Amino acid sequence: MNIVSPKGFKAVGIHCGLKHKKYDLALLVSDVPANAAGVFTTNAIQAAPLVITKELIQSTGKMQAIIINSGNANACTGTAGMQDALTMQLKTAEKIGISPDLVGVASTGVIGEKLNMEPIVAGIASFEPTNTLESSIQFSQAILTTDTVTKNTSYRVEIDGKEVVVAGTAKGSGMIEPNMATMLGFITTDANIEATHLQEALKTVTDVTFNAITVDGDTSTNDMVIVMANGMAQNEQLTPSHPEWEIFLNALHAVSQDLAKMIAKDGEGATKLIEVEVNGAISDSEARKIAKTVVGSPLVKTAVFGCDANWGRVIAAVGYSGATVNPSDIHIQIGPTTVVHGGEPANFSEEELLVYLKQPEVKIIVDLNIGDGIGLAWGCDLTYDYVQINATYRS
Amino acid sequence: MNIVSPKGFKAVGIHCGLKHKKYDLALLVSDVPANAAGVFTTNAIQAAPLVITKELIQSTGKMQAIIINSGNANACTGTAGMQDALTMQLKTAEKIGISPDLVGVASTGVIGEKLNMEPIVAGIASFEPTNTLESSIQFSQAILTTDTVTKNTSYRVEIDGKEVVVAGTAKGSGMIEPNMATMLGFITTDANIEATHLQEALKTVTDVTFNAITVDGDTSTNDMVIVMANGMAQNEQLTPSHPEWEIFLNALHAVSQDLAKMIAKDGEGATKLIEVEVNGAISDSEARKIAKTVVGSPLVKTAVFGCDANWGRVIAAVGYSGATVNPSDIHIQIGPTTVVHGGEPANFSEEELLVYLKQPEVKIIVDLNIGDGIGLAWGCDLTYDYVQINATYRS
Repeated sequence: MNIVSPKGFKAVGIHCGLKHKKYDLALLVSDVPANAAGVFTTNAIQAAPLVITKELIQSTGKMQAIIINSGNANACTGTAGMQDALTMQLKTAEKIGISPDLVGVASTGVIGEKLNMEPIVAGIASFEPTNTLESSIQFSQAILTTDTVTKNTSYRVEIDGKEVVVAGTAKGSGMIEPNMATMLGFITTDANIEATHLQEALKTVTDVTFNAITVDGDTSTNDMVIVMANGMAQNEQLTPSHPEWEIFLNALHAVSQDLAKMIAKDGEGATKLIEVEVNGAISDSEARKIAKTVVGSPLVKTAVFGCDANWGRVIAAVGYSGATVNPSDIHIQIGPTTVVHGGEPANFSEEELLVYLKQPEVKIIVDLNIGDGIGLAWGCDLTYDYVQINATYRS
Repeated sequence: MNIVSPKGFKAVGIHCGLKHKKYDLALLVSDVPANAAGVFTTNAIQAAPLVITKELIQSTGKMQAIIINSGNANACTGTAGMQDALTMQLKTAEKIGISPDLVGVASTGVIGEKLNMEPIVAGIASFEPTNTLESSIQFSQAILTTDTVTKNTSYRVEIDGKEVVVAGTAKGSGMIEPNMATMLGFITTDANIEATHLQEALKTVTDVTFNAITVDGDTSTNDMVIVMANGMAQNEQLTPSHPEWEIFLNALHAVSQDLAKMIAKDGEGATKLIEVEVNGAISDSEARKIAKTVVGSPLVKTAVFGCDANWGRVIAAVGYSGATVNPSDIHIQIGPTTVVHGGEPANFSEEELLVYLKQPEVKIIVDLNIGDGIGLAWGCDLTYDYVQINATYRS
């Protein structure tokens, strides 16, 4: 299954010429207008395409198509940049034969450079979206920047006896942190659900998935996660009081968590996915805050890269997270091994732990033992390649 | 001039055996009990020596000596660690022949390993502090961890016609950020000033110096800056209403700012000092917040390492700082070159800017043009060596 597996969706991805060779222009379109929800960057500097898409979703709750370019963020480009984003919206609407206010726009890439509109306009004219696996792959390729792999997931559930599919694709992979960052996520579903409830569901799952990952603590000007629900599964309209609401919410959660973890794992230069689980905090939000602080610590990230069981950096990060802790109640596990018991070093075999730390996914579990709050966060190690990629990004 | 230049101070630094070869044990002592002030880590996990020194200063405002070891932080070491720190305090007091409650203790190094007390006790017994340049150099060497250079500064001023000296030495250099982090600073002065006013003065200058630097955003369990004022300059007692109060405050500020910049410049793996100046914010504290956010951004830090004038990352960091900004009013300069004017790209020569960026100190100036708030922050670039140092720290 893929991004066009929900009924009535088509996609396309092409190389138009913004990048040297790679795919750089993509379109996702529904056969009928879809109810839409979105979450957007919290950065005070917001790119022109993001402003357009955010206003569209917040004012109408409807979207039928979204056009995306990679290679250029169209951010800090002033009124000319806004004009360019509007042109992308208009040309796409004309190509499909729908109203411009049903077309979203997204961009990702370098900040502060004017878009080269000629190849984009020609590219839009050449679009031939289909609902094939090939199209979905091309779409997921065309939205990438420094990502090394495409990111796709989907789930099929049954609601009111109807098959409902929730699918998603996303891109990372620098500037990933708090509350959206050079991250684009596109989720499609054929579920029948109104925009307000869709927004509520997206917000709920985003807090514990896309907003629980960090690559480098930088937040970008262009991030968004969009859900389009076109209703073609023909289930009874979903509301929080629908008996199978949780089934839909779980599918949306699963898609979001899969994509979030894929983004974290493919963080710039990463060799490992780090998952931090915090238990026993005074609240879930404090647990998430601690988990996010630990997974975001450059010293923890470099230690994981070096396969070093340096739990002192973990407990130091717990300490500076700002959350309520009682030092002598803290237990810490790295994988299956307890390394801190009651705030003090536990006896453990560094050699056995080294074997664990050499794996591609590392889990750190922190038990605070002062409450019932639980939380998860994901990130990646900090490597020579992160420095290399970002020291030479524009070269 | 150096840390023992103020009248009545002596120091010593030796190799006792905690590290393989380098100096690792140090003592600073005043001929008479000094009034003392200190600022300490905000981390909820606090090392035993820090707890002792903090309580001592807060309860009596007096200190005559401080013993410091490097190579082991004596943090997360439980009651045994507290006992070890108390033993360091007691043995030092016995050696000098003063009361233990006049002796501070500081440690820096790996977290969670028990101190090897035998070489420390033997080292204390062998101490022969003097007021020579050589002793001050040995002292400043013995407090280092991954620092590559010693950090010393001093200023001579005249108050009430008396010569007053303020001198300081410090160590960095990872885990440097907000509000103290694996940072130790020791400031000596022969000024005559009561502990409460000394504390007030230290707090004032720390906010704009030691707390305005960042290396990697991690805060440690052991950080402290201590000032000892032994009054031997025989000036009239300094209070904020003393006509020459500002002279003393400026000297303390200069010492703190010099040390803070040296720490930032010698951040782990750093090749460049980055200074960020923010003008026109709605308040000084917002300006400092923005400056700190920009100088702490891994993407800005890697761009500076790569000599890349990637101002998009600067404006993105301004945007996610959480401060009030008006995007279209923002001007940004890198060194002498305006790169952003009114929120949009300015025309500039990338080649000329490259010449500037290749220098060892890079200044970024952000003008928000919405108020009178100003602020400075310092940091360093993020390099391959930072990753190398921290991936292999315990190996």
